[in-house]
Amino acid sequence: MRARDLVEDYPLVRLSDDALDAARLIADQRRPAVVVVDEEGRPVTVLPASQVLSFSVPGYVQEDPSLSRVYDEKGGADVCIRNLSRRSVEEVLPPAERRYELPVAPGNATVMECAATMARLRTPLVVVTEDDGAIRGVVTASHLLQVILDASGSQA
Amino acid sequence: MRARDLVEDYPLVRLSDDALDAARLIADQRRPAVVVVDEEGRPVTVLPASQVLSFSVPGYVQEDPSLSRVYDEKGGADVCIRNLSRRSVEEVLPPAERRYELPVAPGNATVMECAATMARLRTPLVVVTEDDGAIRGVVTASHLLQVILDASGSQA
Repeated sequence: MRARDLVEDYPLVRLSDDALDAARLIADQRRPAVVVVDEEGRPVTVLPASQVLSFSVPGYVQEDPSLSRVYDEKGGADVCIRNLSRRSVEEVLPPAERRYELPVAPGNATVMECAATMARLRTPLVVVTEDDGAIRGVVTASHLLQVILDASGSQA
Repeated sequence: MRARDLVEDYPLVRLSDDALDAARLIADQRRPAVVVVDEEGRPVTVLPASQVLSFSVPGYVQEDPSLSRVYDEKGGADVCIRNLSRRSVEEVLPPAERRYELPVAPGNATVMECAATMARLRTPLVVVTEDDGAIRGVVTASHLLQVILDASGSQA
């Protein structure tokens, strides 16, 4: 079994996409992150849901969460949404040195190669690309564990 | 709306649980991680799926993933499972200095307080506990984004 046999769809956003649309995608699909691609569709990094929150929650509230009590629910939400409005995905990404390294595996990578890459980079997924750089989908760490457990036929 | 109104069930394992059972739980529920609790049920840290892979994939394969090709599929899986067998969750956790800080919020935390905590610690979830320390469940970053988007009634 190879990486290309294990891929799942995963939400993608472009660097130039609207940050608020990326937030909606994360919310609608209840994902911990979305994969960010450049204008040619090549994988760049991931945008974690926590980074979207980090960009939207005012700095003084992040330093002292009890200050959030100055807002009512709608007021607080409006402030958060305003901080995301009219910004691109690229603008809300962490600075380059703090971005997540996005592991990429070729379509013919073995299960153990994918597992080794996730283990080394401590990521819950790898993006699977074909020779032309096109993204096939992602393989998740939990899916790999399933494949390993099934292949070994391990008993409790 | 408060943290306790937003909680979801999330898989929990104890420090003394079998690591292989934790791997199965992650695989069955297709989760990126499980929450680890001590013997009294108090939250300790999270065990990410990538850490389980990190413990199970031999070190030399992590350094050079192409070495995984010495194994066939079942052989590779057997090696991985053997590395997890007869170990507790505590034994497969990262060393203390590399463990994830597990954010905890009280049941009456506001949406923005939860968001501020996730933003500061860059985590995709907070564990919600009541006054007696019992875990109510977790609130995820993507769910918070949904609540914020809905409360603001933002338009594209």
